[in-house]
Amino acid sequence: MDKLIVIKIGGNVIDDDETLIRFLRDFADLNATDGHPGSCRKILVHGGGRLATQLAEKLGVVQTIVDGRRITDTETLKIAVMTYAGLVNKSIVARLQSMQCNAIGLSGADGDAILAHKRNHPVIDYGWVGDVDSVNADLCELLLQHNFTLVFAPVTHDQTGQLLNTNADTIAQELAKRLTGKYEVELVYCFEKPGVLLNADDETTVIPLMQPELYRQLKEKGRVFSGMIPKLDNAFSALTSGVSRVRIGKAEHLRSLVTGESGTTISL
Amino acid sequence: MDKLIVIKIGGNVIDDDETLIRFLRDFADLNATDGHPGSCRKILVHGGGRLATQLAEKLGVVQTIVDGRRITDTETLKIAVMTYAGLVNKSIVARLQSMQCNAIGLSGADGDAILAHKRNHPVIDYGWVGDVDSVNADLCELLLQHNFTLVFAPVTHDQTGQLLNTNADTIAQELAKRLTGKYEVELVYCFEKPGVLLNADDETTVIPLMQPELYRQLKEKGRVFSGMIPKLDNAFSALTSGVSRVRIGKAEHLRSLVTGESGTTISL
Repeated sequence: MDKLIVIKIGGNVIDDDETLIRFLRDFADLNATDGHPGSCRKILVHGGGRLATQLAEKLGVVQTIVDGRRITDTETLKIAVMTYAGLVNKSIVARLQSMQCNAIGLSGADGDAILAHKRNHPVIDYGWVGDVDSVNADLCELLLQHNFTLVFAPVTHDQTGQLLNTNADTIAQELAKRLTGKYEVELVYCFEKPGVLLNADDETTVIPLMQPELYRQLKEKGRVFSGMIPKLDNAFSALTSGVSRVRIGKAEHLRSLVTGESGTTISL
Repeated sequence: MDKLIVIKIGGNVIDDDETLIRFLRDFADLNATDGHPGSCRKILVHGGGRLATQLAEKLGVVQTIVDGRRITDTETLKIAVMTYAGLVNKSIVARLQSMQCNAIGLSGADGDAILAHKRNHPVIDYGWVGDVDSVNADLCELLLQHNFTLVFAPVTHDQTGQLLNTNADTIAQELAKRLTGKYEVELVYCFEKPGVLLNADDETTVIPLMQPELYRQLKEKGRVFSGMIPKLDNAFSALTSGVSRVRIGKAEHLRSLVTGESGTTISL
């Protein structure tokens, strides 16, 4: 079975041109790791970064935040589609092309890649925010088997013609889960910290290996930073769905992150 | 040999939501015409419309026009990528998906679909404008054979990581020419007029069939509107390169345009 690495990068990588280019070079160079004998297929999922917020400010589109979550009204959705599926996605694809990585950029609408529905929340109307229903694994497999690297923007659709703003972490997780039948899948979350920390204020306290028993113990002792709990719960959920390994760490350390030499590896 | 229709739509279709939706419905319904026995594959190429100009105005990005041509400086390129490859492309794709047309949106950077180089003009620096070098026919064929309809934004790349603003008419023509080896290709240009007119001021004077001899005679008599000459020269060049037929007419008449019942059919 071929290996597939699904990597999610966030705003901190996208917002800085030098960091992004260095990351993309490491990503383009990524090949079968761990002495894996088969080919290594790659999917990159990117968030939006500050570009969308900056564009909204310039255009005078007021951003409504409820409970720390941005509400996606019609104008904000247009901005998200323009920046995420347009400028960010195509700039990354063009850059990867220059690095001999045959990338193809996709939103969830393209080829019906990711179907979602407008979030139905009992209290808050999040606007044009999509929760994922399904992933078109056949399309992904067709392109991956023809040696294309997929670059996903965090935009989905609902089959009625409506585009939806969708969390990039979720997209990465759903892609990883859905492709486990076809590949040995590894899911990599790049974020600002070098891994899951034992002490949130001390970057030298990365936990190299997190397994269910350790996670249970740390949670009992209140030693897991609350912001990490949803990330870790999602990681264990992905593992339960057949993803082989989840790794969390810095985009700047991608090379050592994918081999487990840096960051936190989460496994069952 | 399967049939392939390459259709180009311009700003007049994109700028009006109702016109666009009606056009996309006709486009989604389009199947093998003329009693052609094989399948009918489809490619849609769209221009930008007023959206980019409006966004530039809102953002205070001054548009430089030289000899009637817009200069694509860095900020203007970003706007073009955001609107053409982002908002317009993904909105069309999502809309087609709702019409059971499995569309996939592409810029020229995606899968190295269309390679171009920055225009090298002896006098005018057009900025980030690309002239097409090559089309990745294998990628197009792979997707078309898997029943995807391709939707191209007028953005290309140069393999050094640079995106380029590229004329949509040219993209349609290059795609049509390059795919003649694999399909029986028909190229359809939708514009504001119902076809090539004998009298530019009278829309009832559509020339139904234009062949080289008639074109030569009309040009001699000065009966061809000067704005039409590059379009017709390009059409004949496409025919010489193996495109079966070129049709010119209104997007609103798509159904009758593709069967030759409206508009102008250009053939050798």
